[in-house]
Amino acid sequence: MTEKVFDVVGIGNAIVDILSHADDAFLAAHGLARGAMTLIDADRASALYRAMGPSVESSGGSAANTIAGVASLGGRGAFIGKVNNDQFGGVFRHDIRASGVVFETPSSEEGPPTARCLIFVTNDAQRTMQTYLGACLELGPEDVDPLVISHAKVTYLEGYLWDPPRAKQAFIKAAEIARNAGHKVALTLSDPFCVDRHRAEFQQLVEKHVDILFANENEICSLWQTDRFDEALQATRGKCEVAALTRSARGSIIVAGDELHVVDAAPVPHVIDTTGAGDLYAAGFLFGYTAGKPPYECARIGALAAAEVISHFGARPQTPLTELLLAEMR
Amino acid sequence: MTEKVFDVVGIGNAIVDILSHADDAFLAAHGLARGAMTLIDADRASALYRAMGPSVESSGGSAANTIAGVASLGGRGAFIGKVNNDQFGGVFRHDIRASGVVFETPSSEEGPPTARCLIFVTNDAQRTMQTYLGACLELGPEDVDPLVISHAKVTYLEGYLWDPPRAKQAFIKAAEIARNAGHKVALTLSDPFCVDRHRAEFQQLVEKHVDILFANENEICSLWQTDRFDEALQATRGKCEVAALTRSARGSIIVAGDELHVVDAAPVPHVIDTTGAGDLYAAGFLFGYTAGKPPYECARIGALAAAEVISHFGARPQTPLTELLLAEMR
Repeated sequence: MTEKVFDVVGIGNAIVDILSHADDAFLAAHGLARGAMTLIDADRASALYRAMGPSVESSGGSAANTIAGVASLGGRGAFIGKVNNDQFGGVFRHDIRASGVVFETPSSEEGPPTARCLIFVTNDAQRTMQTYLGACLELGPEDVDPLVISHAKVTYLEGYLWDPPRAKQAFIKAAEIARNAGHKVALTLSDPFCVDRHRAEFQQLVEKHVDILFANENEICSLWQTDRFDEALQATRGKCEVAALTRSARGSIIVAGDELHVVDAAPVPHVIDTTGAGDLYAAGFLFGYTAGKPPYECARIGALAAAEVISHFGARPQTPLTELLLAEMR
Repeated sequence: MTEKVFDVVGIGNAIVDILSHADDAFLAAHGLARGAMTLIDADRASALYRAMGPSVESSGGSAANTIAGVASLGGRGAFIGKVNNDQFGGVFRHDIRASGVVFETPSSEEGPPTARCLIFVTNDAQRTMQTYLGACLELGPEDVDPLVISHAKVTYLEGYLWDPPRAKQAFIKAAEIARNAGHKVALTLSDPFCVDRHRAEFQQLVEKHVDILFANENEICSLWQTDRFDEALQATRGKCEVAALTRSARGSIIVAGDELHVVDAAPVPHVIDTTGAGDLYAAGFLFGYTAGKPPYECARIGALAAAEVISHFGARPQTPLTELLLAEMR
């Protein structure tokens, strides 16, 4: 493996997104939990896909989107995740490499196909996700290259990894290597229902292993079991080096030791599809963090990157984010 | 003077509001600074009043609105301010007493008439204020009753008092009495242009004499001469016991020593007129504060009171705020 130094290495579910528009009646008719990510099996995935309207496919996966965002900002990124050696696996590998990310996890040659996420975007730009994990279930600690992790300033992990059983072991191995190398471990809580499924473990992680935490309002409220954002904020203080709590159009709150910053969302003339908003916020934040920027600036870059990705359909940037960054600095 | 104990005594300009709707063309044609409070002389007040459309009169004044709000919430309030012994002075005295506030400052028998504020409400519910100070210029330290101040848990002062020259002396006298009695001094910065006029003195006040500070985003940014809210927030930390920084629909941020709270605005189905929003927020906050509530709860009551006053025309509550409070607690 390369001796290259990375800003951020991400470990996550390698997923191809299948996006289409849908109305509330469709969500209701198929019993879909609006705005959430739900795990489904192969049969359910096939049935839903048959019922789905015209769609577009694009490489996705939460941590993968984040690393693609880091690369688009000019950072050095690597990704670890499992695809099958099938057509969608080829698409995923092509896209993430074409975005400048190092991706060398071997494909699985047999077993379930590459993971897919059926994403239904409603008129309010909200996305409802149904994920068939497929090949992601094969990811294990053997896929974690110690050389990559020990050469990355930040190892970024998605909470969704708690769902496939062996990925958790990969996660723990990576976190230990990163900590032993004196580097940072970042975690995104991913989804409020995901937090529900793994709350006790996530609380322990946040208190003991995570340096940089990302969570949106629903996720952080779920973690500390409160319905009041301010209570969740207070519970988060002192738990990790820095926590970035995002609130959609209300911007983000950064907790860093005794510091607390209030950062506005970047303006978006027309929100088209919120898929990837949190992923790209994390990309911008981590790009700033690994460049040594103070917390406010990190959050500001996160807000810019998120604004780009919600202004179009799909979860990866369509404009090189370096251009946005340069425009902002002018 | 009474031996009654007060929760809050306010000192401010005693003003009758004259409200009407206006469009942007009217503001432009008369050179009015949109959203701000501008001081005008008697001639200008007459000319603007002649040009003004149909209007409604109601008792106003920033601190007076706040104390009326405290009373409406069930708190014990007193007000110190100067009216003339004319018809508007009678209206002001009637209204504030009818709202349950103790008001015993003697009227001036001669000199300029009772102050008035011409308020132009535009379609976006924003208010543009033109104030003729009139009798307020007569307020001086002799009007500050030491017995009232020393029996109030909080002495609340409006930044607008820095405009009439002798009111400042009243302000300082009151602050000293309050501090010597072991009570608290609260200040609202009132208006970004008011902060511009008196910045150095306000900075000194905040650092040395004020326990509880109220400011909206524009005011706190003006105080510390930054255009970034987060920078103003950081500059405010450590300066006074508690600071409540309001951001309209974005809610408020409370800084209290090492504590920092993020509090949402209360929902308002339709914003009609933002006149008095900050005044009533302060009312709710101070009501909570003098009842011994923690900062988050104080801000929450402030948000409720502000939501009531912006849902109708005029700067004083139209629904008894105790009812709102009870409804919220249910």
